[in-house]
Amino acid sequence: MTNYLSHLECSATGDRFAADCLRGLSPAGRPLLCRYDLAAVAKTVTPDAIHMRPRGLWRWRELLPLPAGVVPLTLGEGDTPLHDAPGLASALGVGRLWIKDEALEPTGSFKARGLSLAVNMALQLGARAFAIPSAGNAGGALAAYAALAGVPAHVFVPADTPVVNQREVLLFGATLHRVDGLIHDCGRIVGERKAELDAFDVSTLKEPYRLEGKKTMGFELCEQLGWRVPDVIVYPTGGGTGLIGVHKAIAELTALGWLRGAKQPRYVAVQARGCAPIVDAFYTGAKDATTAEGAHTVASGLRVPKAIGDRIMLEILRTTGGTAIAIDDDELLADMRVLAAKTGIAACPEAGACICAIRRLRASGYLAADDEVVTFNTGAGTKYVELLPTEL
Amino acid sequence: MTNYLSHLECSATGDRFAADCLRGLSPAGRPLLCRYDLAAVAKTVTPDAIHMRPRGLWRWRELLPLPAGVVPLTLGEGDTPLHDAPGLASALGVGRLWIKDEALEPTGSFKARGLSLAVNMALQLGARAFAIPSAGNAGGALAAYAALAGVPAHVFVPADTPVVNQREVLLFGATLHRVDGLIHDCGRIVGERKAELDAFDVSTLKEPYRLEGKKTMGFELCEQLGWRVPDVIVYPTGGGTGLIGVHKAIAELTALGWLRGAKQPRYVAVQARGCAPIVDAFYTGAKDATTAEGAHTVASGLRVPKAIGDRIMLEILRTTGGTAIAIDDDELLADMRVLAAKTGIAACPEAGACICAIRRLRASGYLAADDEVVTFNTGAGTKYVELLPTEL
Repeated sequence: MTNYLSHLECSATGDRFAADCLRGLSPAGRPLLCRYDLAAVAKTVTPDAIHMRPRGLWRWRELLPLPAGVVPLTLGEGDTPLHDAPGLASALGVGRLWIKDEALEPTGSFKARGLSLAVNMALQLGARAFAIPSAGNAGGALAAYAALAGVPAHVFVPADTPVVNQREVLLFGATLHRVDGLIHDCGRIVGERKAELDAFDVSTLKEPYRLEGKKTMGFELCEQLGWRVPDVIVYPTGGGTGLIGVHKAIAELTALGWLRGAKQPRYVAVQARGCAPIVDAFYTGAKDATTAEGAHTVASGLRVPKAIGDRIMLEILRTTGGTAIAIDDDELLADMRVLAAKTGIAACPEAGACICAIRRLRASGYLAADDEVVTFNTGAGTKYVELLPTEL
Repeated sequence: MTNYLSHLECSATGDRFAADCLRGLSPAGRPLLCRYDLAAVAKTVTPDAIHMRPRGLWRWRELLPLPAGVVPLTLGEGDTPLHDAPGLASALGVGRLWIKDEALEPTGSFKARGLSLAVNMALQLGARAFAIPSAGNAGGALAAYAALAGVPAHVFVPADTPVVNQREVLLFGATLHRVDGLIHDCGRIVGERKAELDAFDVSTLKEPYRLEGKKTMGFELCEQLGWRVPDVIVYPTGGGTGLIGVHKAIAELTALGWLRGAKQPRYVAVQARGCAPIVDAFYTGAKDATTAEGAHTVASGLRVPKAIGDRIMLEILRTTGGTAIAIDDDELLADMRVLAAKTGIAACPEAGACICAIRRLRASGYLAADDEVVTFNTGAGTKYVELLPTEL
């Protein structure tokens, strides 16, 4: 198997860079994106061949950056179920609703996909230790892959991060740094201390490969729908790699000619009312988001006051006819319970926000009665012990 | 597809019963076991055909009891990863060590497999509601499948059951009954109240189908090893359906002629020092276990003072050259951290007990330096918030 990764591209300027060494942001200070020789991929492999391979995200090897011949370190990430939820679709008033359940990942969240790719790639390119800021599940995912690799990991979290997300870092033997601040403060400290720690910074979108892991959610989604896309994709948006990754996946499958029909989905970014910089920028028409002041929400994965991928997200929303919406904490908590009780999915608060968003967007008319909608349970609700109900 | 389930058999007397209605224990008060027309299965389907089917435990349809043509309710249970752990094998002094990671299940534990089968079968046979006693993860698993099915579930737990296991029951909209006692007290109350609640009792081994779900771990294990068995299977033993299920699976695959070689594994039951009725019975030579007095252990899944499957378990240990071992809480907690930090698996305390058991059995000489060992991470360690480390 040869490697089809062609180069890295600055998401702002389009400048090209070789993918042969550890890289962070582009010289313009923006995320670098992986670009592949898709024409060569299309000549080499078929969707059927990928479908028949052993389960897990490494089935998509030709569309991933790990050099040919390298055996990946894996915890079994990828190939999560896509649940058809007719009862909930009916209750919400949309034509179809599918929920991709990322609770069934190593460490119980979609973060495993990105950190698997980031750690595997960085080890190939010479990293000997890792550092990450985390608002929730990313820290545990990094700690797990670092444990598997046998290298040190430093996880910087806000001191009020959910207790399970802090303790799982320690379970995997990584070093936990509790910060008096929010995730962007943690990110700044990682930047300041990474040289001293000899650690490679795997912050969201500050290196090119986490996104490549996340995008496999989009590959699987299209495959599970029979190589087609839904009308609308509703994604809970903190740092934004989930939404950006799914969009990149569908763009790549489209370029490969593997999708039936010409339809492209609309993308909806869902945030919490107490921390909604993307929603604010979307409605003011700004190209970039400004840092959310006093960010607060119980949905820890959405407590990201400033995302480096803001410009990419906003462009996706605007070019696809998408939208953005902010949900109050009491509403997202109520719909976390609705989602779990109607489907049996171990719903997280971020998924609750998406269910509420679908209800609200149907009421506003943005969603039509026959729209086919896909959303995501980005992690296991059981990790949010503080938010689980204590009575019926 | 026809149905290959032939009949139910009393595990004590061998008496046969038709599988055409809801049944609990046999008239002798012992578990009923599903028996199949394996000769017909062998003529109908091949291991390769099963291997190529879409992922999940329903791949094994000919070896499961759900009537032909019925579409199962599913949350994506089954097909968990089997991790080769060479570093840990070397540290423990055994030839090979594989760990089957049941954290990647719906509701984060192996309990999903059994409750999926039990709920699907009982609904086919007329059940309209469910009741279960649970020491830990089983209650949440039942609540999830009941939510998916849209029927009520009643979960009876000791009042000191881990907090996440209590709250997840409520998240799924089931009714939580907190009992001043242990799981066998909960089981007694389920028996007393099930008629009043119009609920079918899905207690461990008190109906025949949970075991059929659990056994799919054994099917997958053999398939993942290339249709062969390891030398030793080390299983954490509370109610015992995991161990009994894996043994039943390997017996069925052997009868089908699907396994390479004639070797059969030895089975090791691992319990906690504070609740070790099977270990005690194994060493005193008793045919049945006696109720453990004052049962206590932090490994909630092992806090089962009296198991209805005791006789079946003891026979498996004795007829395969197996053994039983009890582990102290401080040791199993230490090895929960060793397992996580060496492999990246979100280890639960019951899996920690198994790692400690392997170390001790190697030191005693029961395990040889070239033995190939399989053990299980029966659930996500992140659900045990009380037991996660708070410092390195």
